[in-house]
Amino acid sequence: MKDRVKPERPSFSAVAERRFRLAGKSIIEKGHPYFVPVDKLEQKFASDPDGYLSLAHYDYLGLSRNPHVLAAGHAAIDAMGSGAGASRLVGGERSTHQALERDMAEFLGAGDVLAMISGYLTNVSLINHLLGPRDLVLIDELAHNSILLGAKSGRFHCEMFAHNDLDDLEQRLTENRDQYRHVLVVVEGLYSMDGDIPDLPRLVAMKEAHDAWLLVDEAHSYGVLGATGRGLCEHFDIDPSRVELSVGTLSKSFVSSGGFICASKDIISWLRFTLPGFVYSVGLSPTTVATAHAALNVLRDEPERVSRLKQKSRLFLDASVAAGLNPGDAIGEAVVPLMFNSPEQTMMVSQTLLEAGIYAPPIVQVGVPKDQPRIRFFFSAEHRDQDILRAVDIAAAAASGSLPVQIASADR
Amino acid sequence: MKDRVKPERPSFSAVAERRFRLAGKSIIEKGHPYFVPVDKLEQKFASDPDGYLSLAHYDYLGLSRNPHVLAAGHAAIDAMGSGAGASRLVGGERSTHQALERDMAEFLGAGDVLAMISGYLTNVSLINHLLGPRDLVLIDELAHNSILLGAKSGRFHCEMFAHNDLDDLEQRLTENRDQYRHVLVVVEGLYSMDGDIPDLPRLVAMKEAHDAWLLVDEAHSYGVLGATGRGLCEHFDIDPSRVELSVGTLSKSFVSSGGFICASKDIISWLRFTLPGFVYSVGLSPTTVATAHAALNVLRDEPERVSRLKQKSRLFLDASVAAGLNPGDAIGEAVVPLMFNSPEQTMMVSQTLLEAGIYAPPIVQVGVPKDQPRIRFFFSAEHRDQDILRAVDIAAAAASGSLPVQIASADR
Repeated sequence: MKDRVKPERPSFSAVAERRFRLAGKSIIEKGHPYFVPVDKLEQKFASDPDGYLSLAHYDYLGLSRNPHVLAAGHAAIDAMGSGAGASRLVGGERSTHQALERDMAEFLGAGDVLAMISGYLTNVSLINHLLGPRDLVLIDELAHNSILLGAKSGRFHCEMFAHNDLDDLEQRLTENRDQYRHVLVVVEGLYSMDGDIPDLPRLVAMKEAHDAWLLVDEAHSYGVLGATGRGLCEHFDIDPSRVELSVGTLSKSFVSSGGFICASKDIISWLRFTLPGFVYSVGLSPTTVATAHAALNVLRDEPERVSRLKQKSRLFLDASVAAGLNPGDAIGEAVVPLMFNSPEQTMMVSQTLLEAGIYAPPIVQVGVPKDQPRIRFFFSAEHRDQDILRAVDIAAAAASGSLPVQIASADR
Repeated sequence: MKDRVKPERPSFSAVAERRFRLAGKSIIEKGHPYFVPVDKLEQKFASDPDGYLSLAHYDYLGLSRNPHVLAAGHAAIDAMGSGAGASRLVGGERSTHQALERDMAEFLGAGDVLAMISGYLTNVSLINHLLGPRDLVLIDELAHNSILLGAKSGRFHCEMFAHNDLDDLEQRLTENRDQYRHVLVVVEGLYSMDGDIPDLPRLVAMKEAHDAWLLVDEAHSYGVLGATGRGLCEHFDIDPSRVELSVGTLSKSFVSSGGFICASKDIISWLRFTLPGFVYSVGLSPTTVATAHAALNVLRDEPERVSRLKQKSRLFLDASVAAGLNPGDAIGEAVVPLMFNSPEQTMMVSQTLLEAGIYAPPIVQVGVPKDQPRIRFFFSAEHRDQDILRAVDIAAAAASGSLPVQIASADR
C-alpha cells in the first residue's frame, strides 16, 4: 500500500451518529415507547383484574394461541426438526410447503401460490424481478416501505400517485402509458396505517383499459376483508383472476411468518424457478409452514371469526367517533388509527393506555407523515367488547387532558 | 375511461412464458432434479440398509434434530404461542429477542447484534440503507445474490472486483476512492458455491489504508471457520472490531431462519430504530428465536462439533482429489463443490447419487457461471466417514462413465 495524504473523513460511528440524529434520536433519548417486551407486559399486569390487553398485534383472527395452531407447531418440530436447511430449489423442499401453497391457492381462488421467507422481501424481490428499464411502476404514495424499496430498486421508472386517488392514477396512465413497455400499478388491500381500502372495481377496469398489470398487497386484508376473509376481491365481489398478482403474508391472520404470491399457474411456475428472493433464500421452517397451514384451516372452517373481527373493529370505530376521537378515513376493518394533534399528545395517550394495561404504541416517527401522528389499534376476533370500550374511554379521557401523565421510557 | 387505439401488447402470461424460456425452461421441461421433497426421500430410503444421506443441507453442526433445539422449540410454542404479531419496534418485541442478540454478540465478539426476519433481506436492506448517491460499493463478483440486489438497489455506484482478487480490489480503491464519500467493500466469509475464503488480513489492512468500510457476509462461516466456529476473524486471528459490519444467518449453523447484523453498539442502535427491512418487518417468531438460541448454546458448549465438521469436510475434499474429481478452490470447510464438464454430466452424477439415497442436487442453471456446473456438497458434524467416502466413490464412478443413468424428473 503506498503512502498518500488522506482527506479527513468521519468514522463510520460518526456517520451513524449523525444519521441517527437526523432520524430523530433526540426524541428517542428523551424516553420512548418502543421495543416494549410483551412478555414483560403480560407479567406486569398478571395480577390486574382487567389484565393485559394487546391492541398492538395483527393477530386478527385470534389464533396465536389457538390449540390447532399450537398442536401443528409441536407436531412439525417432532416430524421434521428445526429449519428447512436449504433453498427449496436445492434441498429445502418438503411436501408441507407444497400442501400449504395448494390449500392457500384454493382458499383464495388463485391459480397457484408461492411462499416466501419474508413478506417484506416478497415485495422487494417481486417488483424488482418483474420490471425492466422500459417499464413503469405506479405506486400509491402510502404503500408499504417494502413496495417502495421494490419500486426504487431497479432501473425502471417509478411514480407515486396520491393516496387512493384514482383520478390521479388515471391521469398518469392516460398521459404516460404509451411511453413504457409494461406498467405495474401497486396498491394495498387494506392500508395498515390508515385502515382504508382502494376502490378495486374502478382500479381493475382502469388497469384493463390501459393494459397495465395490477399488484395488490393483501398483507392486512386476507383473513379480514370479505364475508369469509378472502380479501379485497371478495369485499368487492371481483373475480380474483382479474388481478394479475396479489401478495399476502403469513405473519398476520396466519400467525406465523413469511410472505406469499398469488398468480396464475404459469406465472407462479416461472417465479418458482427464477425469482431471486425465493431461489436464493432458505425455505420456510417446518413449524412456520405448519402453524400457518393450521391457521388457514381454522379460517376456512370457522368463518364466524371474520364476522367477529368486523364487529369488534366497527365497535371501536363507532365508539371512538362518538367520543370525539378522530379515526381518519378508517372503514372499521381490523385496524383503526386515532389521529392526534402532536407527537407529544400521541405519546401521552399511548402511555396512559399502557398504564392501564392496554398496549397500543404510538406511530410518531416512522411510517407516517410527520404531521399525522397516530395510535394504531389492531383488533382480534378474540377481543371482548368491554375491553374495546374501556380503551376508547381511556383514550378519550387522556386526549381531552383529564388524565395527564408523564411519558416514561420503556423498560428494556 | 375514454376510448383509444391501443397498441398490441403481449399478455402478462406471455411475458412470463418468454422470460421463463430465456431462463432455461426447456432444460426444466426435459426433466429436472429440483424441488425434491426431502420427506419423501426419507420415506423412500427408509428400508435401505444405507438409508437416506443428505449432503444438500447446511445443517453444519448437525443440530436440526438436536434434543436441546427441539425442546427449546416446543417450550417457546407453549410459552409464547405462534408468531411475533408485529414489528419489534411497535409490539413484536420479546425478552427472548434481546437475549438471543446479547448472547450472539458475546459469542462472536461483536458490540451488538440486530436479528432480522430474513438473511437475504438483511443484505438488501442494510446495503441500501448505508449508502447514498456519493458512495461506492465494491463487491466480489461471486457474492450472494442478496448482496448483488442490495448493491444495485440504490442510487450509489456499484463495481464488482474479480473473485478473491485483492490486487484488483486494491487497484479500484487506489484509482477511485477519492471520488466518493463512503466506500463499502463487501465479501463473504465462505463462498457457498466454491467453498473458498477471502484473505481477510490483507483485506482489513487495505480497507483501513483506504478509509473504506468492510462488510463480511458470514452466512456460511459462523459455526464453521475458526477453531470454535466464530467465523472468518477467528480463522485469521483478526480482532472482529476491525470489521465494521458482519452479517450472519440463523438458517445454517443455527438451524432456524432469519439473518443478523453484527456491529458496534452505536451502529446497531441506529439501525435498530431506522433500518427499513427491520423496522417494517415482523419480529422473528418465538420458536425461530428459541431454536436458534438453543443451537447457539450447543455450539458454544460443544466446540468439538466444529472440529468434527472440519474433519468430515477435509475427508471429502481429500478423497475427491484422490479419486480424480475436481473441487475447484475449495479449502475443505463445510462446503465443497465438485466441478463437472457439462450440465448433462453434472445432472447425471447427481441423479446417480440420488438413486443410491445420497441427496446432493446439481447447480447448473442458477447461482454459478453457466460454464462451471457443479454439485455442491454440504457437510455436517453428524455425518459418518463411511457415508462420505461412499458418496465420493459413487460420484467418481458416475463421472468416469462407469455408472450411466437416465435423468428422471423429480416427483412433485
